[in-house]
Amino acid sequence: MTDLERLCIDAVRVLSMDAVQKANCGHPGTPMALAPLGYSVFTKHLTHNPGNPAWTNRDRFVLSVGHASMLIYSLLHLSGYDVSLEDIKDFRQLGSRTPGHPEVGHTAGVETTTGPLGQGVANSVGMAMAERWLADRFNRPGHEIVDHHTIVFCSDGDLMEGISHEAAAIAGHQKLGKLIWIFDDNEITIEGSTNLASSTDQGARFAAYGWHVVTVEDGNDLAAIDAAIEAGKAEDQRPTLVVLKTQIAWGAPTKAGTAGSHGAPLGEGEIAGAKAFYNYPSQEPFFVPEEARAEWWKVAERGAAAEASWNVRFEAYRGAFPAEADEYERMMAGDLPEGWDADLPELTEADATRNSSGKVLNALAARIPELIGGSADLGGSNKTDIQEGGSLLAKNPGGRVVHFGVREHAMGAILNGMALHGGVRPFGGTFLIFSDYMRPAVRLAALMKVPATYVWTHDSIGLGEDGPTHQPVEQLMTLRMVPNLMDLRPADPAETAVLWAEALRRTDGPAFLSLTRQKVPALERAGAPAGEAVHGAYILEEANADVPKVVLLASGSEVQFAVEARARLEEEGVPTRVVSMPSWFLFERQSAAYRDTVLGPDSAVRVSVEAGVTFGWQHWLGRRGRAVGIDEFGASAPAEELYRHFGITTEAVVDAVQEALSS
Amino acid sequence: MTDLERLCIDAVRVLSMDAVQKANCGHPGTPMALAPLGYSVFTKHLTHNPGNPAWTNRDRFVLSVGHASMLIYSLLHLSGYDVSLEDIKDFRQLGSRTPGHPEVGHTAGVETTTGPLGQGVANSVGMAMAERWLADRFNRPGHEIVDHHTIVFCSDGDLMEGISHEAAAIAGHQKLGKLIWIFDDNEITIEGSTNLASSTDQGARFAAYGWHVVTVEDGNDLAAIDAAIEAGKAEDQRPTLVVLKTQIAWGAPTKAGTAGSHGAPLGEGEIAGAKAFYNYPSQEPFFVPEEARAEWWKVAERGAAAEASWNVRFEAYRGAFPAEADEYERMMAGDLPEGWDADLPELTEADATRNSSGKVLNALAARIPELIGGSADLGGSNKTDIQEGGSLLAKNPGGRVVHFGVREHAMGAILNGMALHGGVRPFGGTFLIFSDYMRPAVRLAALMKVPATYVWTHDSIGLGEDGPTHQPVEQLMTLRMVPNLMDLRPADPAETAVLWAEALRRTDGPAFLSLTRQKVPALERAGAPAGEAVHGAYILEEANADVPKVVLLASGSEVQFAVEARARLEEEGVPTRVVSMPSWFLFERQSAAYRDTVLGPDSAVRVSVEAGVTFGWQHWLGRRGRAVGIDEFGASAPAEELYRHFGITTEAVVDAVQEALSS
Repeated sequence: MTDLERLCIDAVRVLSMDAVQKANCGHPGTPMALAPLGYSVFTKHLTHNPGNPAWTNRDRFVLSVGHASMLIYSLLHLSGYDVSLEDIKDFRQLGSRTPGHPEVGHTAGVETTTGPLGQGVANSVGMAMAERWLADRFNRPGHEIVDHHTIVFCSDGDLMEGISHEAAAIAGHQKLGKLIWIFDDNEITIEGSTNLASSTDQGARFAAYGWHVVTVEDGNDLAAIDAAIEAGKAEDQRPTLVVLKTQIAWGAPTKAGTAGSHGAPLGEGEIAGAKAFYNYPSQEPFFVPEEARAEWWKVAERGAAAEASWNVRFEAYRGAFPAEADEYERMMAGDLPEGWDADLPELTEADATRNSSGKVLNALAARIPELIGGSADLGGSNKTDIQEGGSLLAKNPGGRVVHFGVREHAMGAILNGMALHGGVRPFGGTFLIFSDYMRPAVRLAALMKVPATYVWTHDSIGLGEDGPTHQPVEQLMTLRMVPNLMDLRPADPAETAVLWAEALRRTDGPAFLSLTRQKVPALERAGAPAGEAVHGAYILEEANADVPKVVLLASGSEVQFAVEARARLEEEGVPTRVVSMPSWFLFERQSAAYRDTVLGPDSAVRVSVEAGVTFGWQHWLGRRGRAVGIDEFGASAPAEELYRHFGITTEAVVDAVQEALSS
Repeated sequence: MTDLERLCIDAVRVLSMDAVQKANCGHPGTPMALAPLGYSVFTKHLTHNPGNPAWTNRDRFVLSVGHASMLIYSLLHLSGYDVSLEDIKDFRQLGSRTPGHPEVGHTAGVETTTGPLGQGVANSVGMAMAERWLADRFNRPGHEIVDHHTIVFCSDGDLMEGISHEAAAIAGHQKLGKLIWIFDDNEITIEGSTNLASSTDQGARFAAYGWHVVTVEDGNDLAAIDAAIEAGKAEDQRPTLVVLKTQIAWGAPTKAGTAGSHGAPLGEGEIAGAKAFYNYPSQEPFFVPEEARAEWWKVAERGAAAEASWNVRFEAYRGAFPAEADEYERMMAGDLPEGWDADLPELTEADATRNSSGKVLNALAARIPELIGGSADLGGSNKTDIQEGGSLLAKNPGGRVVHFGVREHAMGAILNGMALHGGVRPFGGTFLIFSDYMRPAVRLAALMKVPATYVWTHDSIGLGEDGPTHQPVEQLMTLRMVPNLMDLRPADPAETAVLWAEALRRTDGPAFLSLTRQKVPALERAGAPAGEAVHGAYILEEANADVPKVVLLASGSEVQFAVEARARLEEEGVPTRVVSMPSWFLFERQSAAYRDTVLGPDSAVRVSVEAGVTFGWQHWLGRRGRAVGIDEFGASAPAEELYRHFGITTEAVVDAVQEALSS
């Protein structure tokens, strides 16, 4: 390595150490160890333009080891992204561009939010799949307008997490030749040496998934790093794992190679010692020598030139394929095609809402070519197959049906990666109970404002005989508590069509459909078209009086009980309103006046019915209200027996109303 | 294979096919394919006593592929467990002993509840670790009283799940030589051929984890199956994976080898064809020939003899080591030692509750030798290390500190396996946010009534700079919704001691401690000793009036704000009560009269304060109530700034009270 290279690398180390020290918290060791790698990747291997982080054909970079955030902030700053030295000094402060872990949408050049281990590596698989899908759709001979790599830095922690297994197995199976993970093999975890907890041969493990594996013995050997990454780029039939042996906190006099340098400031003395060891030109905090700045600045110059060259090529493409160029730009902008919802089916027959969902999905898919997705091995049950879409496989990279395998967690994170890459509109399905398996990825979708759509079927004890391990009870309500996650639980086939479209209208966060295995009636809709469902709740049947005495609130498959209960109560002279309430998220976003109108006067008794926990319904019910639901685990039996057994019936609703009225 | 063996095996197939057909749902294909394996294991390799499924030194058997429940039910029935032919005919009916997926505690001989894929394999790692720990503690030369294997049947689905990676890596690292997984390699998943979703070389993958791998090419080759399992038993330094090539629904005329036989009845014609193919002596449903019954019955005979022989050996052990024998019996019964809580520390200084937890844990550990556990690589942060406990490693199998690695999900399932094995009292820690990663295992603990204890620290925005990816917001409330999961969020060091003990008092389900990273004051307790916390909520400070005008409800680190707010309100002449509410689970289980007393009169305004979602608090607050909390994602900044930024402060509580009083 040249002296100038060394200086450029040490500048990364210095900024990282100093920022952690100033914040008095953070993770200095990994940025110090990976500074040579970061320098190599950002200056030589990534094709990116710091001046335009939104350039659609940029290589994607993922810092899966998110706690090493000062590494990416230092690299972004030095490369000329919109991260200033003041931002670096504001590390981990309220409102700064340099939060504790990198956040997409918050800091230029950050492609995904990382920190929860394993998420970034799995995101990268989605990015690489999206890239290949778009390349297959848009590239033409002589016009490779979609052509970029995805490069990931990951850690022992990432590779210990189960999601790394799921994601790596998919990447290997899909033969994602443009995906490169670089594993920081530092033999240290928080509790100490990795040999306390692991003896996995990671190279052999990844070879078993069908990956190309390269080892670099010294994290400071720039030439070997460059050669490994070049070997990864040259291999286009397999993803590449580079096993990079490093020493954490390299250069720190006493803390190098120790767990103590992982998650705490080094201390002034240790920092001074490291700077002396590097022979760094100044001990001044945050000092970056001019020659290093000048060298780093070339990244931005080369990046601007790279994008300019691509722009020329894209204009040539536009000349030859104007429709395709327009479509590419539309898809990458995240805009749905004009008329995308024109063929939404009118569903007027009784059916399981999962079946309705399958029909709606296919109607939408016919008009939205970028709508791609699948299931975690339950496609036939979730009704997530796009007919004639073809399986998305290495031999058919333009397919639209993704076979995620029994890998719910990676599915969630891959959907995130696809959406973050842009150009595709991803969805994924499993049973609602298994939303628990993918919950960390769902939460990150909500945090990152990623418009993924989840198709979660078999959404209650109504799935029947599979029993309590498969019957969601608390899932629906707990998902409603995740900030920025849109809940959609249609009551009937018509609402299913309306709400699928609502999910796709979202651009700033995920949405899930909670769907039945069992048949539900098509509701009679005298004065309440299903389109009202977009308000989250609406009056499905009004009371036979100016003022309702009872308001029944219900969602999904239980709305039918509310309707039947109303009929009985009205017979008994009790003016009863039925509110269908498919989405708390949407209802919360209506005006207070609308909500008050729907919920009815304070004088009315409110009773809810939903085949899930009653906990939470008090939000809408008020003190006199009653909730019909299930507050224990389910059981294995035919669905109708279970509804009777657990007391979720028309009779139970009527009884609850009468009890409330008389108390 | 002899004709008699063949008949015994086909009886398993017949019962399985017929039961699924009668129930009109279920999974026939895998029981048919694995019948030879099941026969081999139940008759030759498992040392177990159908007459006493509670025999402590039995081999443990786990059907991780839980949807193939008719396999285990058929095996249990034929072996003489308390599963009758009527039970088999009642498959998947309400209240039957044969639910859709096997449930521990519900059916004799079922060791763990399976169905959610990957859980069973991970449970088995905990069982094998518990066995080895107990063997290390109790065995003496010539007295091998703890000495048994754990045998698992698993599927493609199990091995695709991320948790299988985490669990297998731990098993390999721990060198669990008495653990044998048999992988049903049938090349079929629900969506079709496994090559739609996977090309992993499972044998190579497991070798990379340090496992011993054996392949059997034909699932009907009894001799090869026997040899493979014997090879697994002979290998005592590595766990063994047997890759068993099978054909799903073997013998079904048209459905064998197809995904169509996975999860649906075969149909009468296909069943008749299979029985004919087997040359089975009768087409009558549920028919088992007498000679097969007689042969199967030998399992019970041999089992009774095996246990009797062990009992003799145990009595000899008792003679030589009476104290150890007593302790073994006590531990296996799940009873804590006398005086286990005698040394609970009096904690009267301000401290982070995670620190208090560490002190309490160590005091308890000194008196409860079977209390073992650790963290998912955050031991130093979670304060879960038992000082002087020693790391539990292959070279130190009696250690008490388990290094789970960054593997939260497997940790949860391993705790389940340890507790189900019995003899140890397991706990595991991570950050509260990462409870999301282990949620499926936590839910199963609650469903199975397993007394695992979770130490979840860094339980709010109070963790500070790590930012929104690490700050729980909705987690606490969502966990309160899981049936049978005990929530414990102590307000101060003294409550922490009380509630740790309460967690260990549980015998019928899991409990979690939600603990702070940041320091909290030791509350002044004029008339309210911390011991009151066992009621879930109690009056910490009473209003200066006969009837409180305001009741403040708070948990954990926010109780201090309620106390400060009360002081201000009382100064302003507003009689205000403070209720510390560390456990909704415990509070719900008090008498209605107690709850009413604590919550105060309906005339009082109730205001809650908790650094989590406000959603759910309406349960206690009533219509006039107000909730102070956070209903959005957190941010990266010092903790005190975040509390101010998100408005969780004394001022906010006072303001909410005044707003409620004036409205």
